[in-house]
Amino acid sequence: MSASAKTGTVYGVGLGPGDLELLSVKADRLVRGARHVAFFRKAGRTGQSRRIAAPLLAEGAIEFAMEYPVTTEIPLSDPRYNEILSAFYADCAAHLRALAEAGHDVVVLCEGDPFFYGSFMHMYTRLKDVVPVDVVPAITGMSGAWTATGMPITWGDDVLSVLMGTLPKDVLATQMASADAIVVMKIGRNIDKVRAALRTAGKFDAAWLIEYATMPNQTVQKLSDAGDKVTPYFSIIVVHGQGRRP
Amino acid sequence: MSASAKTGTVYGVGLGPGDLELLSVKADRLVRGARHVAFFRKAGRTGQSRRIAAPLLAEGAIEFAMEYPVTTEIPLSDPRYNEILSAFYADCAAHLRALAEAGHDVVVLCEGDPFFYGSFMHMYTRLKDVVPVDVVPAITGMSGAWTATGMPITWGDDVLSVLMGTLPKDVLATQMASADAIVVMKIGRNIDKVRAALRTAGKFDAAWLIEYATMPNQTVQKLSDAGDKVTPYFSIIVVHGQGRRP
Repeated sequence: MSASAKTGTVYGVGLGPGDLELLSVKADRLVRGARHVAFFRKAGRTGQSRRIAAPLLAEGAIEFAMEYPVTTEIPLSDPRYNEILSAFYADCAAHLRALAEAGHDVVVLCEGDPFFYGSFMHMYTRLKDVVPVDVVPAITGMSGAWTATGMPITWGDDVLSVLMGTLPKDVLATQMASADAIVVMKIGRNIDKVRAALRTAGKFDAAWLIEYATMPNQTVQKLSDAGDKVTPYFSIIVVHGQGRRP
Repeated sequence: MSASAKTGTVYGVGLGPGDLELLSVKADRLVRGARHVAFFRKAGRTGQSRRIAAPLLAEGAIEFAMEYPVTTEIPLSDPRYNEILSAFYADCAAHLRALAEAGHDVVVLCEGDPFFYGSFMHMYTRLKDVVPVDVVPAITGMSGAWTATGMPITWGDDVLSVLMGTLPKDVLATQMASADAIVVMKIGRNIDKVRAALRTAGKFDAAWLIEYATMPNQTVQKLSDAGDKVTPYFSIIVVHGQGRRP
């Protein structure tokens, strides 16, 4: 780091559910003005956050694609999974840190809200005590999804539970039974388990499936109408609360 | 309605947690361009959504303040509560409908996200089949709050439960005990009950209290440090999840 360079800031910028009009004013300004952008993606893919932000990126913006070394080949329970992922995050954080220490601001593009099940959290914990980090909250994917259904998600005293499709079936069913309103994320290959849990909890018929919320290819349907086709990982299931409403 | 006038649209525009930079690009444009705005407030108050939007309102914008006829004087369990509130909502909806049928677009200013425990839902259900209604999702108050703590709210498979402080203590405690991450809203005079429920669930020491998230007077502190002072209704308590993190 040169003695004269001011340390840059690493911005974790939430992009929201996908519609560019739903970026915050702050996120819109940061993304358009970014000279350095970074984003996570699966190897060989464009990346969801990169795709959302594409129309806003300045010409000549320098991109740092952080490509996941593992996805589903190694089970979560295998200790190698954590080791490989941890080393990957450390490498990415070192690169972002080096950019900031060289005086560059870096905008990390994050789908959804960065502190809500987001990948940026793994950069945040590694960088927050080392370089300036600013987290810009965003509209969550689930807000995009429940708005797309045209029905409010929660009324009065409704209890909302947010559940990951990666949880065991019995945990899902128990949580679903004790909540008024439900959001299920990380669905993808967990769809059959999620369906079974909703049935056990008596809430299958009230569930809606939203794919690509707020995006041009958005679909909204009752889960019971969705058939057996493959569901994208980023799809969301909601069950609306039925609480007090004068 | 004149034969030539095109029916206007009633926009339910989420303003987010309070910082104007966190309005969506769409909300910012709609609020700045609005000739008619409407908002809920307690009688005699400015109103939270009106206060947030004030710097953006166009000169000469026509304001419709929808003033709650009851707040806490009548218990929720009293049938008069529902009757009075229902008549109030019907009056407000009739006014918004008349504006739209006269060809005017109306922007209803909503703090937070309109479909997430929001007052606009009571207009939405009364208007959606009668005039065009467009709901603009927003950053939730809870996203503003957890971002303010500087700690991610959920990791990996964490279960997040969103609870209202108006719930009975035993319901709160049971829900708190079975969740990994917790958000409590509608606190105000329920603060002592919420504290007691957190203690019963063994989560009091992990709880944070956020007042006025994202606003200039924001405060963030451990709940255990907050003492016994009165807490605003719009304050939020969060307990962060501790799930998987490579």
